[in-house]
Amino acid sequence: MIGLGDQEKRAVVLYSGGLDSTTVLHMAMDEGYDSYPISFDYKQRHAVELTFAKKSLEKLGLLGRWKVFKLDFSKVKSSALTDSSIEIPKGRHPDEMGDAIPVSYVPLRNTIFLSYAAAYAESLGINHVFIGVNCLDYSGYPDCRPEFLESMEKALSLGSRHADNPGSSFHLHAPLLHLTKSEIIKKGRELGVNYDLTWSCYDPVVEDGMVKPCGACDSCVLRHEAFDALDA
Amino acid sequence: MIGLGDQEKRAVVLYSGGLDSTTVLHMAMDEGYDSYPISFDYKQRHAVELTFAKKSLEKLGLLGRWKVFKLDFSKVKSSALTDSSIEIPKGRHPDEMGDAIPVSYVPLRNTIFLSYAAAYAESLGINHVFIGVNCLDYSGYPDCRPEFLESMEKALSLGSRHADNPGSSFHLHAPLLHLTKSEIIKKGRELGVNYDLTWSCYDPVVEDGMVKPCGACDSCVLRHEAFDALDA
Repeated sequence: MIGLGDQEKRAVVLYSGGLDSTTVLHMAMDEGYDSYPISFDYKQRHAVELTFAKKSLEKLGLLGRWKVFKLDFSKVKSSALTDSSIEIPKGRHPDEMGDAIPVSYVPLRNTIFLSYAAAYAESLGINHVFIGVNCLDYSGYPDCRPEFLESMEKALSLGSRHADNPGSSFHLHAPLLHLTKSEIIKKGRELGVNYDLTWSCYDPVVEDGMVKPCGACDSCVLRHEAFDALDA
Repeated sequence: MIGLGDQEKRAVVLYSGGLDSTTVLHMAMDEGYDSYPISFDYKQRHAVELTFAKKSLEKLGLLGRWKVFKLDFSKVKSSALTDSSIEIPKGRHPDEMGDAIPVSYVPLRNTIFLSYAAAYAESLGINHVFIGVNCLDYSGYPDCRPEFLESMEKALSLGSRHADNPGSSFHLHAPLLHLTKSEIIKKGRELGVNYDLTWSCYDPVVEDGMVKPCGACDSCVLRHEAFDALDA
């Protein structure tokens, strides 16, 4: 029997190496959670984020605990992040990004991520899972909204050992849910996040033997706007 | 934009090559669903089931449409199906199996399976997903119960493009949910299922260069009991 005791303050943290999840990892640690970072290798166009993830984890002394799950999205088409034949929009002002589901949406990606995170957590007897979604800057992603997270928390609990333990359940923590990108960075700076070790770009370019952010995809634009607003 | 039209009677069918899911595949086809079978290769102890899956699909003319997703369960311990160091109980009478969660339970397996099935379905513009769970013979699995399926259907819909399409949602079909194993086989025989091409055993043995069911694990016992009851 695997212990499900809530008394242990341990958490699995979904950690991509991006700005948001790096901040979340620091927040979880600051809140006293013994943290188990996990990442996903799904042949994403921006797999370079995993190199950044590794750098931050080295600095935090958590590299030995890091797990990377390989996911098979090869048969799930229709996302610009996993299908290089779909173009990533460039040079859009945040006002132009709108609320529509963007081409970078990967079908059910966070549902799959959270299912894996919960499976891994359950196998370790951990009840807490942190995820760095927010519903302000990327309002177009259905799997970044509060109603999805509530519903997923319930499904995960009912589909696991928690179902047979009255009062026991998974707890999904999404501390960035209602923060703007600038507020996230502000919070992270207070906690000592080194944002130079985070990656946001969806469409990395290779130049002079270096991998660089494109500077023009939605993710780059939102990142730059947020830093500009803070440092103005 | 991907069409989400319910008018098209197409379905993704979770299909392991086992007795239950083979029956479900036949039921979906009998109900007029143009069916897209998917399977999972998660280094399960009984991966031989995929060979059986292939045989049945050849017979049904669906082999060309079959997709097998590779899943990484290497970091999710605690199940006898994915960890060969955990022993599979043998020779238990169905009355001894009880309602407790069995060692063959793989943490959140059906949650992960359904998330992938829905992601694949969404990328094809399909709203219907069939799954061969039942809550009678295997009452110990939390992810085979009606309350889990309802909750998961909601989470999948809220985490996908359906969220932005009023009135649109995923439909999870679990036509075996309240059937006994004998009733499932009876139904399958009416639909022409060849059960010689299905695999149930959790712990295959190799003898004389052949892979054979062990005959003693819970899954073998329940299968034999069901056939015996029908053919008595």
